[in-house]
Amino acid sequence: MSIKYDKSYLRGYVGENDLKKIFPKIKKAHDDLENKTGLGNDYVGWTDLPSRIEDKFLDSLVNLGKEVRSHSDFLISIGIGGSYLGIRATIKFLRNSELIPVDYAGHNMSVDGLYELLENVKNKRITICVISKSGTTTEPAIAFRIIKKVMEEKYSKEELRQRIICVTDEKKGALRKIADECGFKSFVIPDDVGGRFSVLTPVGLVPLAIAGVDIKALVNGARDGQKEYSSIDLDKNIAYQYAGVRYLLYKKKKLIEVLASFYDNVFYVAEWWKQLYGESEAKEGKGIFPSSLIMSTDLHSMGQLMQDGVRNVFETFIAIEKPEHSLIIPSEKDDLDKFNIVAGRDLDYVNKQAYKATAAAHYEGGVPNSTISLDKADSYHLGKLYYFFERAVAVSGYLLGVNPFNQPGVEAYKKKMFALLGKKD
Amino acid sequence: MSIKYDKSYLRGYVGENDLKKIFPKIKKAHDDLENKTGLGNDYVGWTDLPSRIEDKFLDSLVNLGKEVRSHSDFLISIGIGGSYLGIRATIKFLRNSELIPVDYAGHNMSVDGLYELLENVKNKRITICVISKSGTTTEPAIAFRIIKKVMEEKYSKEELRQRIICVTDEKKGALRKIADECGFKSFVIPDDVGGRFSVLTPVGLVPLAIAGVDIKALVNGARDGQKEYSSIDLDKNIAYQYAGVRYLLYKKKKLIEVLASFYDNVFYVAEWWKQLYGESEAKEGKGIFPSSLIMSTDLHSMGQLMQDGVRNVFETFIAIEKPEHSLIIPSEKDDLDKFNIVAGRDLDYVNKQAYKATAAAHYEGGVPNSTISLDKADSYHLGKLYYFFERAVAVSGYLLGVNPFNQPGVEAYKKKMFALLGKKD
Repeated sequence: MSIKYDKSYLRGYVGENDLKKIFPKIKKAHDDLENKTGLGNDYVGWTDLPSRIEDKFLDSLVNLGKEVRSHSDFLISIGIGGSYLGIRATIKFLRNSELIPVDYAGHNMSVDGLYELLENVKNKRITICVISKSGTTTEPAIAFRIIKKVMEEKYSKEELRQRIICVTDEKKGALRKIADECGFKSFVIPDDVGGRFSVLTPVGLVPLAIAGVDIKALVNGARDGQKEYSSIDLDKNIAYQYAGVRYLLYKKKKLIEVLASFYDNVFYVAEWWKQLYGESEAKEGKGIFPSSLIMSTDLHSMGQLMQDGVRNVFETFIAIEKPEHSLIIPSEKDDLDKFNIVAGRDLDYVNKQAYKATAAAHYEGGVPNSTISLDKADSYHLGKLYYFFERAVAVSGYLLGVNPFNQPGVEAYKKKMFALLGKKD
Repeated sequence: MSIKYDKSYLRGYVGENDLKKIFPKIKKAHDDLENKTGLGNDYVGWTDLPSRIEDKFLDSLVNLGKEVRSHSDFLISIGIGGSYLGIRATIKFLRNSELIPVDYAGHNMSVDGLYELLENVKNKRITICVISKSGTTTEPAIAFRIIKKVMEEKYSKEELRQRIICVTDEKKGALRKIADECGFKSFVIPDDVGGRFSVLTPVGLVPLAIAGVDIKALVNGARDGQKEYSSIDLDKNIAYQYAGVRYLLYKKKKLIEVLASFYDNVFYVAEWWKQLYGESEAKEGKGIFPSSLIMSTDLHSMGQLMQDGVRNVFETFIAIEKPEHSLIIPSEKDDLDKFNIVAGRDLDYVNKQAYKATAAAHYEGGVPNSTISLDKADSYHLGKLYYFFERAVAVSGYLLGVNPFNQPGVEAYKKKMFALLGKKD
């Protein structure tokens, strides 16, 4: 039940001594986080969130999930950014065939995509979960209008109250008013946790519980993460090590970080991570450009660049020690492809050799890399990993000297769009 | 029936005069390509490929598709890199509900992913298309072993000959031998077209025809692309303009290109593009790092970075003028979210305002950007777009002084992996 961090292929780029040298900076970041004395300290509610979640609240969500699944066979989760990525990341990562199907709306305005989704659920019994702090974010607000209209044609008012669940502000905002006026079940997004840190608040927990995810294990993982990654003992706290490594590589002009995995279920976790890191660090002309690769797929697209391109890249692998299933490679009489050498082996054995080979080859090609290993791809380890990344980015942002909890740049396109639409707000 | 290129938001970064100044370099690249006098000239068969494809060959593939779909309701396409990305990009882009379902294997070794695929097709009548020039690339070779075994348990030898289709070298290699020995139907990958340029060879055309894609329209688009984008008239040839723009931005230290779209069906086209550009340009310590964003989704993750991060990024949008479907935004009596201002409008109208706002905001934030617009998201325009990007990257590679048609770095991880596996080849 653990997460490990392997720094072997940072040799020559970042050593233990380098990390020790910046320990005072890390300590300062840690203290600012713990004492709420750093930039953006109104938004550090996530630091002790896992330990503050009450078990009886989790029980109530588990029961809600059972109830919804008794009358629904499809969930549409409406939200964008932090109200979207963590949910999709969790469901894709767990790859649990017992969950009810979930699709996502309100994170873009691709009309053909939403049309396809609506066609797909035409004959299904659906529940929707609308997630928005304000209720006025363009993409989810408009998707909600369109989907609600479709549901109003299909269900009675009473049924709608069973099938529309809102996650929003406690008191104010458009979605809060809609929920209260229509009598939709609703849950509260806390004020002191920003969107990209909110996967363990009702933002993530409500739709995940409805889908059937083991949210108790997810939160338990995060609780253990909170214990381990809030420690100021740098030798033991791998989240702080990762934060320090990133800072030191950035100082060496490694301006792009590639989060890479040989396990394809990591894809949306990497998308979640991109928001967490891109939005937390990249401001005031600073910050690392986060990108992601799923191997071997992307070795056969971006592999050339990783090996031989501009040397401004470093790489962080996410490894899974024990996959869920096993597939044995068959022997072939003629052995034309010469792979009888691995016949009888599990496919994952070859995958792991590919990972080892890639990490070594990229290092030798001038790409320093490190690896975060999870024992298993389950809810517990994912909850722990979420906390790991959250804790690390907060420290990393403070090391860079930016406020890791705001996102002033995101407003720019919204303002222009409202002007084009003639919207006053 | 056209593709347009809008350079308005390159103002102050790349002007028409800058392009004119490098015209001699572009002319040299063009001549080297046409006369086969440049680096890697053994691999420029793609330049006049669309005009060389015979209509009767396309007819035979259309008939093959009909035949396969009469006995199969699921296609598994086995391949990696260029034998994977173009197929998936085409099918996702077209979003055609009349195609038979397709899934992909052999592009990674995620055991849980392949297990899930096999579970999913357990009760389906499947055909597989195995695509590999050599037949000894690890990922597809091993996936083929595993899937063939499953099929051997399910189908007779005669049925297997209907259900296994190979696309491989004309004469040599393991897959050619397997196909000939077992009597599998097979198609030829030409020697003078590299993997990442091969979507219009049987590599792409065979599985796409089986799925039911209109491959004639795809090839017709590419034929028109060949005419337009092989012209040396820089004022008219937008592919050469795009190549020149990229080169000039790279010279101004814009080291990352983000391919962005407000249309979510562009996602895998961007993945195809990443291979084409990353693998063609990034060598000898040179080249642009290709990344992609799907908006609005990623505006709420990477938007902050695009607006305020390190200013080493430029952006290329792919726009779709006319989506297939329409969804009208409903009016709401209370207008709590204040979006009645767009009630009665099509969702795509708001999407287009979001695009305009983003392009303007990013430009003002220091990210030069340009836009490639397609009239429609159909086979014709996609075929044309494929040729556009192929032609542009060849010129762009020559401008950089690299061989755009090799990929020496991709071998590095393979060599190490074979050593770890104890494989002699």
